[in-house]
Amino acid sequence: MDISQKKKLAVDWFQELRDKICYEFEILENEYSKLSAKNKFIRTKWLRDQDGADGGYGEMSIMKGELFEKVGVNFSKVYGKFSKEFQDKIPGASEDPAFWASGISVVAHMKSPHIPAIHMNTRFINTTKSWFGGGTDLNPIYENKEDTKFFHHNLEKLCNKYNQSYYQKYKKWCDEYFFIKHRNISRGVGGIFYDYLNSNNFDNDFNFTKDVGNIFLNLFKKIIANNIEKVWTKEEREYQLYKRSEYAEFNLIYDRGTKFGLMTGGNIDAILMSMPPIVKWK
Amino acid sequence: MDISQKKKLAVDWFQELRDKICYEFEILENEYSKLSAKNKFIRTKWLRDQDGADGGYGEMSIMKGELFEKVGVNFSKVYGKFSKEFQDKIPGASEDPAFWASGISVVAHMKSPHIPAIHMNTRFINTTKSWFGGGTDLNPIYENKEDTKFFHHNLEKLCNKYNQSYYQKYKKWCDEYFFIKHRNISRGVGGIFYDYLNSNNFDNDFNFTKDVGNIFLNLFKKIIANNIEKVWTKEEREYQLYKRSEYAEFNLIYDRGTKFGLMTGGNIDAILMSMPPIVKWK
Repeated sequence: MDISQKKKLAVDWFQELRDKICYEFEILENEYSKLSAKNKFIRTKWLRDQDGADGGYGEMSIMKGELFEKVGVNFSKVYGKFSKEFQDKIPGASEDPAFWASGISVVAHMKSPHIPAIHMNTRFINTTKSWFGGGTDLNPIYENKEDTKFFHHNLEKLCNKYNQSYYQKYKKWCDEYFFIKHRNISRGVGGIFYDYLNSNNFDNDFNFTKDVGNIFLNLFKKIIANNIEKVWTKEEREYQLYKRSEYAEFNLIYDRGTKFGLMTGGNIDAILMSMPPIVKWK
Repeated sequence: MDISQKKKLAVDWFQELRDKICYEFEILENEYSKLSAKNKFIRTKWLRDQDGADGGYGEMSIMKGELFEKVGVNFSKVYGKFSKEFQDKIPGASEDPAFWASGISVVAHMKSPHIPAIHMNTRFINTTKSWFGGGTDLNPIYENKEDTKFFHHNLEKLCNKYNQSYYQKYKKWCDEYFFIKHRNISRGVGGIFYDYLNSNNFDNDFNFTKDVGNIFLNLFKKIIANNIEKVWTKEEREYQLYKRSEYAEFNLIYDRGTKFGLMTGGNIDAILMSMPPIVKWK
């Protein structure tokens, strides 16, 4: 298979997954909120400019509701040339700055303090090299240990289908990545994080990436179901808003994707889609 | 005058100014809120550890009220040694990493969208060199052009008392510093920002620094009075909460003080005192 076929397969998949996630989240939202005017994802397309030329595009899908206080699903397909500054930081780009990247990114902030926030992202990147990256991680306000166990256990099973070393490696990577250094705490209870995945078997790596997207959706639906009946107090909601400050700090100070986007003139709204809808600081 | 006398004068002044600001802000708050249980600043002391030894201390004063939604006044006096990483970035520290620093920092986020947020900070820093730094800047939600003119005009008059070149230089520095690069907008309407001030006349530099603190208080009291009677709509309040996201982004992504504090293991609560109490992201 040549690289253009691989790119097309990846793009088709990220869009299919985006549509599936939006479809299923809308059903969950409206089963819960029971409003006469249903809550829906609003889709906004943005074009990327590369030095005055076509640099690809993105599509943001955002829904604000009663179950999902704010959920964003970003798809993008972008290409162009890395700036000198970035070239040496990206595998395969020091020889040639041309890049092509496509991916999906999902962040859900829930209204209930008893349903965790969640993040999932997968991507296919091409320079003179080619690789997949991504992951998913869970961010409870009040941790439900059963959920945490369930989440990790199923990610482990998924990883083991592909390679016995993946789970340990990707779980550790996730723990290290989602660490809020200045507070000396983790952002959430972890999950998996992988990058630069190219095992010389495109089908395998692509299937793994697809499975991460699919399992994220299935696991999160189960976690929502586990906690959706729980009522919450005003104090618990307040605690959630304060707790979200850690999420906001992580994204603005440490997150590679956010930093990369902000520094390379990406679409601000798409980059900051991950920010919680309401945050309190003490 | 030897350096220890200068340090003592500076510390006494920063504390005196802190007390004055807290006193006057409490009066304003309680004249406005008319609660039977008055709103007050709550003062919290924190100790700084320098590799297991005494590294100085800080005192946070925070008030949350009806006029001042959140106002923080930080005083600190810290000392120790810069890490290798910082040594080369600080004047006079590459020869000797020992430093001594004291200062005051004020950030006020107001409940009314018609009263600007404001920031003021002044400090006295000593390495093998010695200098003052600081400034003040205004952050309206809905700009009142009269306030902006009044603020700049009075800062200009103050600067001109000391040096005809100060105002232009420090206004420009402020505009450049409080710029939110990823949004390509300014944070607020500016003011003055100065650093590394050592004109070889300690009294002059110290008096200038004292005047910045005093004028901040007087100007802000007048700006509050100008706008305190204005009622606001729910929509204006909402707009304020969204607008504050820019303030939050600036502080976490660009602010030198915040970055410096977070990277050098400062007191998290004191560093993040500047964050708005409630912020919304779209």
